[in-house]
Amino acid sequence: AAHGARKMEDYGRFLALLASTLLIGFVSVILSLVWVFHYREGLSWDGSLGEFNWHPVLIITGFVFIQGIAIIVYRLPWTWKCSKLLMKFIHAGLNTIAMILAIVSMVAVFEFHNAKNIPNMYSLHSWIGLTAVIFYSLQLFLGFAVFLLPFAPVHLRTVLMPIHVYSGLTIFATVIATALMGITEKLIFALKNPAYSASPPEATLVNSLGLLLVIFGLLILWIASRPHWKRPPAENAKILKPTGATPEGTEVESTMTNSSNADKSDLRSNTEAARKQNIKFDEAGQRSTM
Amino acid sequence: AAHGARKMEDYGRFLALLASTLLIGFVSVILSLVWVFHYREGLSWDGSLGEFNWHPVLIITGFVFIQGIAIIVYRLPWTWKCSKLLMKFIHAGLNTIAMILAIVSMVAVFEFHNAKNIPNMYSLHSWIGLTAVIFYSLQLFLGFAVFLLPFAPVHLRTVLMPIHVYSGLTIFATVIATALMGITEKLIFALKNPAYSASPPEATLVNSLGLLLVIFGLLILWIASRPHWKRPPAENAKILKPTGATPEGTEVESTMTNSSNADKSDLRSNTEAARKQNIKFDEAGQRSTM
Repeated sequence: AAHGARKMEDYGRFLALLASTLLIGFVSVILSLVWVFHYREGLSWDGSLGEFNWHPVLIITGFVFIQGIAIIVYRLPWTWKCSKLLMKFIHAGLNTIAMILAIVSMVAVFEFHNAKNIPNMYSLHSWIGLTAVIFYSLQLFLGFAVFLLPFAPVHLRTVLMPIHVYSGLTIFATVIATALMGITEKLIFALKNPAYSASPPEATLVNSLGLLLVIFGLLILWIASRPHWKRPPAENAKILKPTGATPEGTEVESTMTNSSNADKSDLRSNTEAARKQNIKFDEAGQRSTM
Repeated sequence: AAHGARKMEDYGRFLALLASTLLIGFVSVILSLVWVFHYREGLSWDGSLGEFNWHPVLIITGFVFIQGIAIIVYRLPWTWKCSKLLMKFIHAGLNTIAMILAIVSMVAVFEFHNAKNIPNMYSLHSWIGLTAVIFYSLQLFLGFAVFLLPFAPVHLRTVLMPIHVYSGLTIFATVIATALMGITEKLIFALKNPAYSASPPEATLVNSLGLLLVIFGLLILWIASRPHWKRPPAENAKILKPTGATPEGTEVESTMTNSSNADKSDLRSNTEAARKQNIKFDEAGQRSTM
């Protein structure tokens, strides 16, 4: 009973942290809209500053907020009764949406620069940002080919999973760092009278937005890197392996197998059993997140 | 024999990665000196731009390079025969040096700003940078009180270690993100004719420096987060615990106990045994790095 109470307390802590994370991400998106509509030229698609403004809005919405949710989607306990395949589709789908929004946001900047005869790709922001988008695309492609399609052998998945996790978390952190550089650039260029250094209300609002992006990133990284909050391995893994044996790999189930046997079971008892199983898998060091 | 060969191959891979990391960190420090001496006003302590220039040099030397080494100091295999206490002193010592350099580098900026009547603390760079320094000091103080001094109970250490590791790695990443914002600010302010957007040689050099800082950070985070590269737990932990039992905590040895029994043993066999023991500890999820 005490054990169960501790589990529920941990579940409550997860929900509180998740709610705070989503709230901070949501407020960040709202602040980016307040920035471009209240302080700047709003949104348009005509080569003007209104087109440039899509850049911060889409980056914060897609490349920060949606990417962040995509990272922790396996951590949501109420999805543990869903098949792993479904969750992989959601993970890949959210990351695809994030990539599309990131690409559109870059097109907006290039079109704005070209319309105004401003050089492209001169800043550290642009160098690191474009590199991040390229690695993000590569990560998405490789993730799709290795973890979503059913062709990759278990051994390859086991070898690549720690790299996939490391790349995912570091690309996410790099995207936030790039957003902070972008905010810095934009505030210096846009605020002239009063200047950025005079701390007008816009500067305070957008600095706060930058701070929220950092906190959002830190919360996502915390949730993603707690081993006890990981999705438990599939039910059939338990059937295949004798208790106490060392599992050979993380992906015992085929991605094309629907583990619907777990779908109708009671969520809580499923979760409890799953957590225990989870710890056992962690023992083999196979499911390490960073 | 095949097992031993694999271990040696892994050891070789570690050394190659470590050498690359140190080289990139070292080149970053050199580039920061090239920047301030070849393109800027050099170094001085008189309220001029020469005083400001201590800021990038000391941040890159101390807050990035030395902090990075402090993070991975437990990972160096040839230190595994040294006592844990000695390594803790080196870890704390390097971090203390990094903090002192970071504080001196901030004093340089504040004095320069005050001498030139430039407002302090208006930029996102300054907000996040100061926050990082405050959390870094807190981390150093708590780390000293809990993990170096011998008073904290094992349970408290076990609870706080994952938080210490998470804070350490995220503060380090935040420091690099802040350095990128600083580089962005400085290039925009300093490059006027030709402007930053015209990509003069100085812009290319300092953008490259920023890119190297990101790569240095990524390599440190990779080395720090590979479970099989962790320092093995103390020898006496093996004596105290029956094989297969779940260890109660990570810090079975007292910090004031010199585990000199391990000092004279052959390094390789010690390493081999230690790695096996390491895996066993990892099983309990007690020694998780992120």
